[in-house]
Amino acid sequence: MNEFDLIATLTKSLPTNETVVTGAGDDCAVLDFGLAEKLFLFKTDSVVEGVHFTRETPPEKIGHKALGRCLSDVAAMAGVPAAALVTIGLPKGFDAEWIGRIYDGLNALAGKCDVAIVGGETTTNPGGIFISIALLGTVGRGKQILRAGANMGDAIFVTGELGGSLLGKHLDFEPRIAEAQWLAENFSVHAMIDLSDGLAGDLRHILNASGTGAELLKSAVPVSRAAKLQARNSTLAKPAFAAALTDGEDFELLLTVASRDAVKLLDAWKKKFPKIKLSCIGKIVPGRGIIIRDRNRTQKLDAHGYTHFA
Amino acid sequence: MNEFDLIATLTKSLPTNETVVTGAGDDCAVLDFGLAEKLFLFKTDSVVEGVHFTRETPPEKIGHKALGRCLSDVAAMAGVPAAALVTIGLPKGFDAEWIGRIYDGLNALAGKCDVAIVGGETTTNPGGIFISIALLGTVGRGKQILRAGANMGDAIFVTGELGGSLLGKHLDFEPRIAEAQWLAENFSVHAMIDLSDGLAGDLRHILNASGTGAELLKSAVPVSRAAKLQARNSTLAKPAFAAALTDGEDFELLLTVASRDAVKLLDAWKKKFPKIKLSCIGKIVPGRGIIIRDRNRTQKLDAHGYTHFA
Repeated sequence: MNEFDLIATLTKSLPTNETVVTGAGDDCAVLDFGLAEKLFLFKTDSVVEGVHFTRETPPEKIGHKALGRCLSDVAAMAGVPAAALVTIGLPKGFDAEWIGRIYDGLNALAGKCDVAIVGGETTTNPGGIFISIALLGTVGRGKQILRAGANMGDAIFVTGELGGSLLGKHLDFEPRIAEAQWLAENFSVHAMIDLSDGLAGDLRHILNASGTGAELLKSAVPVSRAAKLQARNSTLAKPAFAAALTDGEDFELLLTVASRDAVKLLDAWKKKFPKIKLSCIGKIVPGRGIIIRDRNRTQKLDAHGYTHFA
Repeated sequence: MNEFDLIATLTKSLPTNETVVTGAGDDCAVLDFGLAEKLFLFKTDSVVEGVHFTRETPPEKIGHKALGRCLSDVAAMAGVPAAALVTIGLPKGFDAEWIGRIYDGLNALAGKCDVAIVGGETTTNPGGIFISIALLGTVGRGKQILRAGANMGDAIFVTGELGGSLLGKHLDFEPRIAEAQWLAENFSVHAMIDLSDGLAGDLRHILNASGTGAELLKSAVPVSRAAKLQARNSTLAKPAFAAALTDGEDFELLLTVASRDAVKLLDAWKKKFPKIKLSCIGKIVPGRGIIIRDRNRTQKLDAHGYTHFA
């Protein structure tokens, strides 16, 4: 059983109550506590030694990544992060100074994003360092952007450049909080998600939630320098475009808007965020799954996120 | 460096913002999002294989304990729990059915306490199972009960019976949510904490936060049957009273009220919760630390939570 099957089984019939607007299955849970203008966003995410970082990773970057992952999820709902709790599991004989530097990185990002760190827990974890962050944020009532809103004909956009994040970006990314809020305030964004599993996987989350398919234009997908470098440096590495589709941990925003808004969005974005790329990479179409259009050919992505490209 | 020293170092200068009423250092963080009548409680806690449970522990009880620990902290602030996120780190080759049973126990307790499970995460944890719960709750504005409110002369109360929880109660306890709310609604409770570290350790948290000392009457401390059994069954086990002071994971409430309210509280409690013991175990006194009074002798507890009893 893989992770997604397990989650599907475990989240089949979760207890609920009258506070729940959106439960498990989106970037954040959405909760209503009766505040006139706001709903609450609630999210947890973790990073684990040997999976998301190693003992060789600069500890400040581990802290940055741990919090940044949650912030990216709040951004993907067009929310504002407010307060976080930090749980850290430590093996015996931990180095307190090194752990302190994890917090330095975490606190620096929190300060930058006006997030209060309001507590947490340290505990033992015999197998290695385990950091779990719980984040509480808010979003304007009715302004939350879910995965399940893509409409037929929508233009699909992605921020930044994709692929090769293991070369560094997976530790250094900036959660797109301000960008997401600007998008939500100025455009009717139909669906949004942050890219953690890779473009192919995360687009599929939008498509499955929205009951649609997508067609991507190969030449429009912004492939990062890192993905190209990675492909060039080893004949064993996946092609750069495949890396952009499947590498994961880009922590960029993937969103859809009505096609009539596409040009206006591109123009306004360029003025507002001149240093961050925004690319229209395709459109929402009938059917299921992802089709890649490359000049005259179209091919379907298979279920595992890898392409059939020759 | 022990856990408390590490926490003290890490929480020295945490980022804060205008939502924070009470940050790190109490049972829960208290946050203000502008809701007229309510503040928010935010808490995280975790259980780890090999520390808080083993593979031999019935998985339903692991789930019960994981959520129950957080609920107990919300209870200790006189709060109402609302929604939780569940993070679970799994070693390779996990047994999905067994994990499902952890959720069964967790969901059962959530349902009973009207807590929504609104998501979470599964991830890899090479060393064993790691479960972290994040809990969001509410409390009437100004009604939260902190550790730092004990006044000179206050009577000290504890619910239930203490010690020997490893014989079973650490997995089976019922968080005192309703009891704490009733206490807060009907009495002026000055300070409250839930017993996770043991009576001596947790009372010290109240005393340090309040800047006071305490005198406990040895004969008044409710020693559990399990603590007595444990002491009787092995000459190596600590004496039953020492177990009641230091065993931890009782998940009972420890609280102080003005001495003039003490008798009224005992009477009202007996009518409201006839099946749960409430004991007046001592009083808040000047100075620092904990003094144990036993007939004509008084002795001071040392800093490690263990007694000097001969």
